Amino acid sequence: MAAMRGRFITFEGGEGCGKSTQAARAVAELAALGIDVVGVREPGGTRLAELVRGLLKDESADPPCDRAELLLFLAARAQLVEKVIRPALSAGKWVVSDRFSDSTFAYQGYGRGMDLGVIRTANDFACGGLVPDMTLLLVADPAVAADRMRAREAATSTAADRIECAGDAFHARLREGFDAMAAAEPRRIVRIDANGSPDEVWGEVWKYLKRLI
Amino acid sequence: MAAMRGRFITFEGGEGCGKSTQAARAVAELAALGIDVVGVREPGGTRLAELVRGLLKDESADPPCDRAELLLFLAARAQLVEKVIRPALSAGKWVVSDRFSDSTFAYQGYGRGMDLGVIRTANDFACGGLVPDMTLLLVADPAVAADRMRAREAATSTAADRIECAGDAFHARLREGFDAMAAAEPRRIVRIDANGSPDEVWGEVWKYLKRLI
Repeated sequence: MAAMRGRFITFEGGEGCGKSTQAARAVAELAALGIDVVGVREPGGTRLAELVRGLLKDESADPPCDRAELLLFLAARAQLVEKVIRPALSAGKWVVSDRFSDSTFAYQGYGRGMDLGVIRTANDFACGGLVPDMTLLLVADPAVAADRMRAREAATSTAADRIECAGDAFHARLREGFDAMAAAEPRRIVRIDANGSPDEVWGEVWKYLKRLI
Repeated sequence: MAAMRGRFITFEGGEGCGKSTQAARAVAELAALGIDVVGVREPGGTRLAELVRGLLKDESADPPCDRAELLLFLAARAQLVEKVIRPALSAGKWVVSDRFSDSTFAYQGYGRGMDLGVIRTANDFACGGLVPDMTLLLVADPAVAADRMRAREAATSTAADRIECAGDAFHARLREGFDAMAAAEPRRIVRIDANGSPDEVWGEVWKYLKRLI
């Protein structure tokens, strides 16, 4: 008998929404239920894709132009899908990704103003048409998100990176973009209030995630 | 008075055809005539693009899948066009590139068998529709090219890289691809017999190149 295809779950949202925390918890809680689950992050998840991530986060004298940035994100995604996500799903495993295609539409499309149709074509090519079974969009008020980012910078002694520093207007466009995508795909994208504590937010996430089991 | 746009010249061909030698000579000879000329190579030509080149040539445990490879080449091209080629041409400088879009069609299209229409769309996006004014396609017999590659490996003590090692059938498809492109665009692509000595080949190249002056 062929193994049932696993479920593909993504977490999305702006900086400081807490999605990495929730994605890690989703992996832990699903594993605790005996589900064979793989956690990945974007850009990253393979050696090549992590190297590309380094280029994208690099604060050098040669920051990628908008088109190069988009193509680098898509290259990392292509590799992650081909080498990790598809093989895992085919083997019946679940995959939880911290960011996926929706981030590209939000950041490069709504944020940087690149043509959404071009992004859609290029992204479909990069991931061979793979779409998540469920996307948890974490939405925090800008002030809450800003507090979390400051706390993270203080805790990890790292400065915000090039994309995190893109400015308030950029981050406002991101939020609008995520909202528009959630409105357009209500069956796939679940909007989660992410202003509460990690446990509170997880409670909301779990309400939806458990439906996939 | 606005400066006249410079000329954009590319050298193309399979491994061992001598195009890097001829591209360097073109830069030197044009500069000797007082032309303000910039020489670049692909993938590369900016710090970011050279880092991407490193990823593409890397012989690691995580070689790029076909789609990631294409997207990485295009990311490097997007950056080179945006940061170097367009500014130079706009300033009236000439640009000579060792490889450009035609290599993508030959290697990823004809060589790897990726859809040429998809490549065209993605490539047009990456370089914003920029097309060379003249492309010199250097064509050497397979035996001549193989001898040159062996000589280069011996002289530089370097092994052939991942793409150079792709096999005879791959390199045969490359040649067919370059021939098909030259046949389809005879006004832009000049086919040069590259079996002779560097001076002999340069003589042929110069016959065409001087028409641009």
